[in-house]
Amino acid sequence: MTDIAAITAAAERLKSHARRTPLLESPFLNELAGRRVLVKPECLQHTGSFKFRGAWSALSALDPEVRAKGVLAYSSGNHAQGIAYAAARHGVPSVIVMPEDAPALKLANTRALGAEVVTYDRVGGESREAIGQALSKERGLTLIKPYDEPMVIAGQGTTGLEIAEQAAELGVTTGDVLVCCGGGGLTAGVALALEAHAPQMRARPVEPVGFDDTKRSLIAGEILSNDRPSGSICDAIVTPAPGLLTFPIQQRLCGPGIAVTDNDALRAMAQAFLRLKIVAEPGGAVALAAALYHTDDIQGDAVVAVVSGGNVDPAQFSKALATLE
Amino acid sequence: MTDIAAITAAAERLKSHARRTPLLESPFLNELAGRRVLVKPECLQHTGSFKFRGAWSALSALDPEVRAKGVLAYSSGNHAQGIAYAAARHGVPSVIVMPEDAPALKLANTRALGAEVVTYDRVGGESREAIGQALSKERGLTLIKPYDEPMVIAGQGTTGLEIAEQAAELGVTTGDVLVCCGGGGLTAGVALALEAHAPQMRARPVEPVGFDDTKRSLIAGEILSNDRPSGSICDAIVTPAPGLLTFPIQQRLCGPGIAVTDNDALRAMAQAFLRLKIVAEPGGAVALAAALYHTDDIQGDAVVAVVSGGNVDPAQFSKALATLE
Repeated sequence: MTDIAAITAAAERLKSHARRTPLLESPFLNELAGRRVLVKPECLQHTGSFKFRGAWSALSALDPEVRAKGVLAYSSGNHAQGIAYAAARHGVPSVIVMPEDAPALKLANTRALGAEVVTYDRVGGESREAIGQALSKERGLTLIKPYDEPMVIAGQGTTGLEIAEQAAELGVTTGDVLVCCGGGGLTAGVALALEAHAPQMRARPVEPVGFDDTKRSLIAGEILSNDRPSGSICDAIVTPAPGLLTFPIQQRLCGPGIAVTDNDALRAMAQAFLRLKIVAEPGGAVALAAALYHTDDIQGDAVVAVVSGGNVDPAQFSKALATLE
Repeated sequence: MTDIAAITAAAERLKSHARRTPLLESPFLNELAGRRVLVKPECLQHTGSFKFRGAWSALSALDPEVRAKGVLAYSSGNHAQGIAYAAARHGVPSVIVMPEDAPALKLANTRALGAEVVTYDRVGGESREAIGQALSKERGLTLIKPYDEPMVIAGQGTTGLEIAEQAAELGVTTGDVLVCCGGGGLTAGVALALEAHAPQMRARPVEPVGFDDTKRSLIAGEILSNDRPSGSICDAIVTPAPGLLTFPIQQRLCGPGIAVTDNDALRAMAQAFLRLKIVAEPGGAVALAAALYHTDDIQGDAVVAVVSGGNVDPAQFSKALATLE
């Protein structure tokens, strides 16, 4: 189980390995949103997303002899890069199972970071879990799941520890913390950290329209799935359903979910470029999109938005810039 | 005169007002350059460039009664935004004299940050200094020069204090620190900070080809001017000649200058996008361009490059992304 003690311990293991990303603010975004918008740019984290935190947390928590045999992950891309880089820096092998339609940049980067990449057919219905488990058994690799894994949730939660501290430094101790949500590892981890260190702040999951499984599950009070496996440009946060470990945490601690359109994600990417000078990927921009364009769904004088990743192809980024014209 | 005591005092005044930007590194850039490349992303500073440091330093050092009458600056854009925002946060008026051909984004942002903007014809030969001095006298405004001003140099030097500390945390205490150089305020300030806190590190100015007045002046041992007032996409660092205050500091402390092409600046912007997830403007990318593409001009296992600003129009940024194709 992941609790605040596990997150604090993860923060200790991540020290001088993960980056402490800053908390950014722009008067232009504040004006656009009608309230203060504090942005946690995890695109600046190693490998370009928060996933490095969970990956490092999980690898560093393994028994050294087990770790030495190598690790395995299945991922749409950012978890893959996080695991590959964390494994390389631990000097152990990694095998990554990735959908064959993942962005070219993510496939290439994962290989360049030293991982062996095994692809599968996401649309055709192949199960990455089945492939992962077979490989794990065959080669003695330890499977590190992308979100339903206590040490991964603990690592992602360190983002929340930093938000609590950095927001307080900027005079903000109450309000919503909007989190880009796929399987819910980051959202659950941040929610636990806030519960302990910023009890008047509340995590809220943000998802793409049509892939708002977490939002609907929170309303229904039970885990619901998405109708389709893909179809949003926000590929990094398209997952079938909330996790078995992450959902109960979100149910206990999170505020209502918000769903944003792909076009709003593109517009938020453009604002992040223009006003914060950071590169956000579509799935990494949905929380900022909610902060900027769903202002009626939010209360209070300030909101925090996590930009969870920045691994975007130049062509996609140019489309975002085109929304400024 | 600016010395390390003035920089340390400026750092104290900037505390909790300027951002402490992180020091970034990417295994991909390290491989490209053949050595470790540590990047100081001042594009993440308030107003999108290091200029906020000098602006805050200068304004906060003024007598409150003098400051209350307002401040005046002449600038190609980034100094303007820094002064406008620092003045707004001090609650005092600011008047900015800007070239009429400055990027539209910079003109608009400066106005939006609360400044009154007065434009002049840079190509036609109007003197911004003359206009600035007349306005200063007429309205009782205090002129804050963009680089030849001790409190501005002190503020920019705080970048160097952070580099010395953050590089040491990453195990780097020797090597070149490449600095995007216009009038030399940032370069001189960083050089002074390194002299005191990282004596085995050395600042080196980087400029656009054709506008390498500082490089040539350092070789000649005297202040030389550029032939033309404009003509590079690196508008932020195109200045007529090294400053009277900044040049002697650079002469005493800096290594040889490096000149890079506009195209190398665009390629470096693309790498900053791809590998660091930050937005660099052309003039802000020349130091990174030198680190990545002038590797033979650099010695040692590690180099630091300052990305000095990120205020770039989307169209220009798209041109940089096109270099990746």
